[in-house]
Amino acid sequence: MSASPHQDLLIQGVTAITLGDPVVREDATIVVRDGRIEAVHDAVHDTSEAPPASEFATVIDGRGKLATPGLINAHTHLAMVLMRGYADDLPLMRWLEEEIWPLEAELTADDVYWGSLHACAELIRSGTTCMADMYFHMDQVARAVDESGLRGVLAYGMIAPHGGQKAEDEIALTRDFLSAYHDTADGRVRAAVAPHAPYTCDPTVWERAVELALEHGTLVHTHLAETRAEVESARENWGQTPVERVADLGAFEAPVLAAHCVHLEDADVDILAEHDAHIAHNPTSNLKLASGFAPVQAQLDRGINVAVATDGASSNNNLDLLEEIRLASYCQKAILEDATALPALEALRLGTERGARALKWDGIGTLTSGQTADIVLWDMDRPHWTPNYDPISNLVYSAQSADVATVIVDGRVIMKDREILTFDETEARARVQAYQETHRRR
Amino acid sequence: MSASPHQDLLIQGVTAITLGDPVVREDATIVVRDGRIEAVHDAVHDTSEAPPASEFATVIDGRGKLATPGLINAHTHLAMVLMRGYADDLPLMRWLEEEIWPLEAELTADDVYWGSLHACAELIRSGTTCMADMYFHMDQVARAVDESGLRGVLAYGMIAPHGGQKAEDEIALTRDFLSAYHDTADGRVRAAVAPHAPYTCDPTVWERAVELALEHGTLVHTHLAETRAEVESARENWGQTPVERVADLGAFEAPVLAAHCVHLEDADVDILAEHDAHIAHNPTSNLKLASGFAPVQAQLDRGINVAVATDGASSNNNLDLLEEIRLASYCQKAILEDATALPALEALRLGTERGARALKWDGIGTLTSGQTADIVLWDMDRPHWTPNYDPISNLVYSAQSADVATVIVDGRVIMKDREILTFDETEARARVQAYQETHRRR
Repeated sequence: MSASPHQDLLIQGVTAITLGDPVVREDATIVVRDGRIEAVHDAVHDTSEAPPASEFATVIDGRGKLATPGLINAHTHLAMVLMRGYADDLPLMRWLEEEIWPLEAELTADDVYWGSLHACAELIRSGTTCMADMYFHMDQVARAVDESGLRGVLAYGMIAPHGGQKAEDEIALTRDFLSAYHDTADGRVRAAVAPHAPYTCDPTVWERAVELALEHGTLVHTHLAETRAEVESARENWGQTPVERVADLGAFEAPVLAAHCVHLEDADVDILAEHDAHIAHNPTSNLKLASGFAPVQAQLDRGINVAVATDGASSNNNLDLLEEIRLASYCQKAILEDATALPALEALRLGTERGARALKWDGIGTLTSGQTADIVLWDMDRPHWTPNYDPISNLVYSAQSADVATVIVDGRVIMKDREILTFDETEARARVQAYQETHRRR
Repeated sequence: MSASPHQDLLIQGVTAITLGDPVVREDATIVVRDGRIEAVHDAVHDTSEAPPASEFATVIDGRGKLATPGLINAHTHLAMVLMRGYADDLPLMRWLEEEIWPLEAELTADDVYWGSLHACAELIRSGTTCMADMYFHMDQVARAVDESGLRGVLAYGMIAPHGGQKAEDEIALTRDFLSAYHDTADGRVRAAVAPHAPYTCDPTVWERAVELALEHGTLVHTHLAETRAEVESARENWGQTPVERVADLGAFEAPVLAAHCVHLEDADVDILAEHDAHIAHNPTSNLKLASGFAPVQAQLDRGINVAVATDGASSNNNLDLLEEIRLASYCQKAILEDATALPALEALRLGTERGARALKWDGIGTLTSGQTADIVLWDMDRPHWTPNYDPISNLVYSAQSADVATVIVDGRVIMKDREILTFDETEARARVQAYQETHRRR
């Protein structure tokens, strides 16, 4: 583990969506020491004064900027940026079986490393500071996330529908990854356990996954109830819904992060609620692949914690979490025919506070005293930010991720005024271009 | 009318989505003379050579850029940027009656001018070169559009539900606006006729509107079948759907641009198809106000021309047409549970070619020989553009409007490398900020 890169820094004159009390502070000063938010000051809500700028090695002028917690992308497959736009507008199974899986079968460790690093550039540039990733060659993903300065919960996606030696091999890979990478990169990289889905893992894998998660104090990350066809097939094979199936296999004895959850019966919602499962909602991917509209407001109303995510860039086609936050709100309003559903602040919580809870990562997701300093500064010097009656509304409904100017993780500035400081993003991009050259579709 | 600002210019080395044949050209040269596209050359599809750069006053290096037709926003209320984020997450009628209408009642001509000019900055920065606007103080809107260098079909929104003198006054305002502004600003400003909606205009207004449109050779721009409540109310009041109502009033004797069309019966679709009506689809506004999902694919399949639009920024909350193009595609895929619905290229046509047809504006909407040179250059030097297997896919599914670098209208560069050349956008922004200061909601 390298020496801590934590910095002391001061952000002055900023508008801050703290998600604390008060939710928004104007003309605020954010005090960061040793990678943590010591305090947020502003003249209206404070009698105490901010410490002098002279105490800080780094002082950031926050005027005209909006500070938010770093966004948290609760379900992605980083290296799938390699397949961005490779095959669009196709039915799900044809897309997977004829286009994506053949490419994935040939991916090398190097491909995954450069793809993941390139994805990290996109995440940083769009204000995401933490992600839950599931893929393979996970040592390479961990290396990329470490180098990028981002934070992540990473998991090897186990696939062994028929058990046997394949199941043993998958579990061994997961165990090795947990041992080597859990709580590394100055604590920015954590490992989780990922049985890919009910239909791709036999009972042995599920049972061992839960044991491993409990043993290492981490979570089970999986895909659940993504499509109507998946639910129908589960009923045919097991006489159960996918949620009932994994419940019977003991999945919910561990903390579960379930991606998608588009097609749930009432009984499924009850099971998820009773077991404090967390849902990673992927609105763009669900719409683009025609999976459907997840009933997020109903899930929230039932007390389930819902986070938001991009899924892989091959079905999105970017890693822009602000788009997902916005689309989550729009879709709930439209499907419920209720304009008050999932309002801006609640939508923003999906990508911040609730993301932190879903990933079981304490200390991130808000800008309040004592929290880890994962901070994004958005440039409001754009026509779509004026007027600015309500910065939460402007962020959620009008901003774009290109407004992100500066990104801080653990108190370390990893992008300053749109320049990524932690790695050479042009090299990563060139490597991904080279990958494209050898994988032309037509 | 001022002297024509048309320029000769050459764009070299660009990737061009021409929407002609071939749809995409790589390493292309676009030749613009006297405001028109003389030719698009590339080495693969051409034997003829592009003229030498020395013949052109302006030569643009298009390497790393994507050229597309300027986007066409088929339904907006520009000055409503003044109310961006003023009141969100409210039921439609409460939003209108308690929040928006009281503000609109007090809008001055100056407010509308500065709001519209500020909106033009946002349009230019997001790659829109032409819009269909409906509002009031339309002389101010025309002034703003003229100064901005953009192109627009502008209409005074007539509201006179009970006829009488109010109807006469509204018709007089429309007549005056047509006489003074139709085909002005070097041909970039055209006037249309806008009975606001079936429920806000009595039969006299509708009949006179059609007469005026036919007399001036322009179109009727209206709101139609936006909400379920509107349809129910129409059935109660007239025993007809809104479409049947305006058909009976003779609306379709003129060319009609109907915004929204979310809630249509099969018979309504037939009426629109038979009369060659054009629909302006507003996906974000329809979702955000919980109006519903317009059946766009079905409308297209029936042969109706559908364009795409933002509506006003108060219900969007920006004027970003690329978001609308993307969302149109996603929503059709999801509601039809068909990932092949409204694919990227067809979605892009909604915001370009089909927009031109909907606005009855010949010569725009594609980048082909003989067309007017309304061209947008998108900067692909961003992580979300790599890989780039298919620039149409990357544009529609991954890009963001902040990627727009340079905008050309009528062969005139109105934004170059993100600098707007036609007016002082900072002054417009300051005026809108000043408006906000006097209209704080709380």
